[in-house]
This record gives sequence, structure tokens and C-alpha cells, in this order.
Amino acid sequence: MRKIIVVTGASNGFGRLASNALARAGHTVYASMRETTGRNASRAAEVKAFASQHGADLDVTSQESVNAAIAEIISRNNQLDVVVHSADHTAYGPAEAFTPEQLAQLYDTNVVGTQRVNRAALPQLRKQGQGLLVWVSSSGTRGGTPPYRGPYFATKAAMDALAVSYAGELARWGIETTIIVPGSFTKGTNYCAHSGRPADAVRAEEYADGPTADISEIMLRGLAALGPANADPQAVADAIAEVIDTPFGSRPFRVHFEPSDDGAAIVNGVADRARAELLQLIGLEDILKPTIIG
Amino acid sequence: MRKIIVVTGASNGFGRLASNALARAGHTVYASMRETTGRNASRAAEVKAFASQHGADLDVTSQESVNAAIAEIISRNNQLDVVVHSADHTAYGPAEAFTPEQLAQLYDTNVVGTQRVNRAALPQLRKQGQGLLVWVSSSGTRGGTPPYRGPYFATKAAMDALAVSYAGELARWGIETTIIVPGSFTKGTNYCAHSGRPADAVRAEEYADGPTADISEIMLRGLAALGPANADPQAVADAIAEVIDTPFGSRPFRVHFEPSDDGAAIVNGVADRARAELLQLIGLEDILKPTIIG
Repeated sequence: MRKIIVVTGASNGFGRLASNALARAGHTVYASMRETTGRNASRAAEVKAFASQHGADLDVTSQESVNAAIAEIISRNNQLDVVVHSADHTAYGPAEAFTPEQLAQLYDTNVVGTQRVNRAALPQLRKQGQGLLVWVSSSGTRGGTPPYRGPYFATKAAMDALAVSYAGELARWGIETTIIVPGSFTKGTNYCAHSGRPADAVRAEEYADGPTADISEIMLRGLAALGPANADPQAVADAIAEVIDTPFGSRPFRVHFEPSDDGAAIVNGVADRARAELLQLIGLEDILKPTIIG
Repeated sequence: MRKIIVVTGASNGFGRLASNALARAGHTVYASMRETTGRNASRAAEVKAFASQHGADLDVTSQESVNAAIAEIISRNNQLDVVVHSADHTAYGPAEAFTPEQLAQLYDTNVVGTQRVNRAALPQLRKQGQGLLVWVSSSGTRGGTPPYRGPYFATKAAMDALAVSYAGELARWGIETTIIVPGSFTKGTNYCAHSGRPADAVRAEEYADGPTADISEIMLRGLAALGPANADPQAVADAIAEVIDTPFGSRPFRVHFEPSDDGAAIVNGVADRARAELLQLIGLEDILKPTIIG
């Protein structure tokens, strides 16, 4: 079944791979990103290599931009089936060296961005009585948690928590939720090169010169030794496509990909079980699965 | 040993109880809050009932205010031993009905606020080579996760993740971390009455009239039936005092208080174990405990 899908953050990383994989599978995909005629122009050209993939100029940090993009997708198709939340920025460095403004900006893109897209898309999904939200979380929020990624993990932990809350609140509207939990991929996503750095250079220097001087090097070497060097982020994109092709109501709540097995799968397994037990205890077990309406 | 302690959000809730408990134990406590001469004037008067407790005008949403308050505490005592992060705002309602601005504001108080205080206080703690950060988290971020608290849980999940990252990055500077994880207290903290409500009344109404109409009532009744009616938040404050009186280097990484046993203790137990294992695997097991310097 051909679906109408919007993917945020489709200019690079998992969003780009997922968007192409979904277009290849024949879905109508709106690969959304900022600046389709600016710095993402070459990516926007790549999008057009697939007949069923369309670029969408959508900046998750602007409600106006989000509203316009989602409204146009809905008006063209009279339908919207799936939202894939994969827009995010990363950051690398000692937490203390990031300014409060940097933390707020990361949250704005990685978490408030999903809220803007949800507020634009959910009225249509609720009206349809059927839909799917796919959230691209991170294993680092609940797994091994190596140092120097605090501001980033904070936003992904928040996004994951928001996804879990939305899942229960949307179930009776016929909206399903799947949370994708990728681990650390050394190939293809290039997180270190693209990560935001601390704006407070003086503090960063104190950590680089102090007792923490070798933490970054030890960690990066240790993580590289743990993870298989050939772990392919394409597997994450393919899994997103598989989830979307799974029949409504039987999709997994979470899918994990951890090349270095950092423990997130077991932590999330226990957490999701605790959630299910509490909802059963308080008489809300029905919101563990989306209601099949009509 | 008498310690110099600053407690944020000391006007009410756990911050207020902790601040009084620490003053009662003879510590020099700076009970920090906004508007000590305004709406918190009566609380500021209560502070003075303890000889060793002082009010401090500190607004965690303003770096200028935070810097001034922390600088004054340090200049008066030439020392700062403990920071207790307990300032937070809560929110209650369907996630979709909160505006992006409301999510950003909650994050600003509950997460970026801790960053502002850390950036003001940590240079002194690192210079001393000994200190303690106490973070008041929430069981709802990893335990049962009932609906309608999404924007709040998102901020507490972020705060918890940030605390975990800081713990590792500060260990070699001689700074210890304890995360306090309170559950849902029906008595004394009064979260529903003080919670922020969704600003988008139209969306909130759709949830109140739609298939989700009875979710709030079922949940509140279910949670009330689960939790012991007499669970006393004072126990959380007493535990904070106990942690502070525990010798440096042997304090617990987490302390849980869950009147209704929502599963957070076991989820966090598995998560903290996964973190410890990863740090051991990559050769950073030393940052699991603060270094004893000098």
C-alpha cells in the first residue's frame, strides 16, 4: 500500500537514507529539509532521482514553515499517513562549556521541532482515524552514555519521553507509534564532524588541559574498538521502511540498532514493560495499542 | 561537618522541604527562589526561622541573576560545597495542546536553569577539588509514564540525562553526583493544582471531548488507588540531607522514592548498570566515582 509520508531532517543522516528507502519502496515521500534551494540544493536534486520522492522546504524551528509545508502536502494528497521525526542536531564537548543558549537551540531543533510538526500534522491524522508517528531516538539516552554528549543526549532523552507520552495519548485516535533507537554508527553518519561544539572556548580549554584531558581520546578509541567498523546506517533506514510496511496495529513500539550493544535495548525493554504494567494497573491498558477505528 | 549549600527552587515542593531539613541539620543553606520580596515573601520569612538558613534571590531563568547570587554566596563563605537542583515547573494536559513556546519555557526552567547554575558554581567546585551536585529528577521519566505529563517528563528525562553526563565529566575534578528520583506524591507537593495547563484551549477541548475524554479521570483515580495516601514528601527531603551527610566518595549515585512503585528504580538500576559496563569496556571506569584529590 502506497503511503503519503513526510520525513523531517531528510537532508542527511538517517532521514536522508530513510527517505530514499521509502521512495524506492514506492511510497509518496516528502523529504523535508531547510534551504532546498540553498546549501541543500544538491540533496534536493538527489531527491528527484526517485519519481515518488519530493523535496519539501520545511524548517522545524519555524511553526510558519512547518504549517505551510504540511498544509501543502495534505492539500495535494488529501491525506497524510506517516510522519518520520528524524531532524536533529548533535553536539560534542564537555557539558559545562556549552552556553545556555546552545542547550536551548538544540532543544528547539530536536524536541520542539517535533512538537511543531505534530501540531501541524496530528489534526489530519486524528481526523483520518489512522496514522503512524515514527520517532528517531538515540541509544545514548538510556544505554552506555559516554561523556561529552550531555546536551545532545538530554534532547534525545526528552524526545524519547515525549514520544512515549504521545503514544498513549494518540492511541485512541487510531494513531500508532514506533520509536527507532539507533546506536553509535561510525560510518555514514559522521557525527563527530557534524557535531556542534561548545561556544565557551575558555571552559572547553579547562577540560582539555585539566584532569579530563584524555577523556575524549580514551572514549573515542574505546567506542571504535567496541563497534563493528562496518555497521551500516542503511539498516536503520531499511527498518523504518519495514515498520511502515507492517500492518497497522501490529507495528513494534521500539526497534533497536546498536552496533556496539550499549545496553539501550535492555534498558528500554524494562522501561517499556514498567509502562505497560502501570497502564494495566490503572485501567488504561487499551492505550498500549492504537484503536482500530471504523 | 557544616557545609555551604545552595538549594534552587526553595520556595516550595521538595526544594523547600530539603532546604529546611538541611538548615535544621546545621548546614549553612542558601534557600534560593525568585521574588523573595514579592510573592515569595512569606516563604522568605519562614527561611529566617532557622539561624543557618538564608534567602537568596535567584531566578534560574536568568544567567545574570544566577551569577550574582552564586558569586555572593562564594564571596561570603569563600567556599561552596553542594548545589541542590530542585527548581522546576510542572505541566498537565494532552501534549498536542501545549504550544512550542510552552515546551521551550519548561525546558528553560527545568533544564537550562541547571546549566546556568552549574556554569556559575562549577568553577569554584572544580577549584576546590571537592563538591557535590544533587539533582532532583522524577520517576516519571523512566517508570510508569502515565499520560498527560509529556512536556514535563520530557524536561525531567533531559535533566536526568544531563546529570548522568555531568557525573562522568566532573568525577576527575573531585565532584560527586547524586540523583534523587521522587515518584508521585499526592500529599504536600500538590502537583495538579500547581501544574501549567495547555495554552491551546481548542486542542485541549478536542481531547476532552474525543475518544480520550475519560483518560484523565481514569488515570488520576488509578494512581490514587495505587499510591499510599499518606506518602510524605518529607522523606525525600530527609534523604537529601542524609546524602549530603554521607562521606565524600561513598554517596549513592541514585536514591529512589516511589510511593506507588512505578518501576523507575528497576529501570534506572538497569540503565546505570549499562552505563557502568560501557565505561568499564572503554577504559573509563574511573569516572564512575569522584577522584579524591589532595
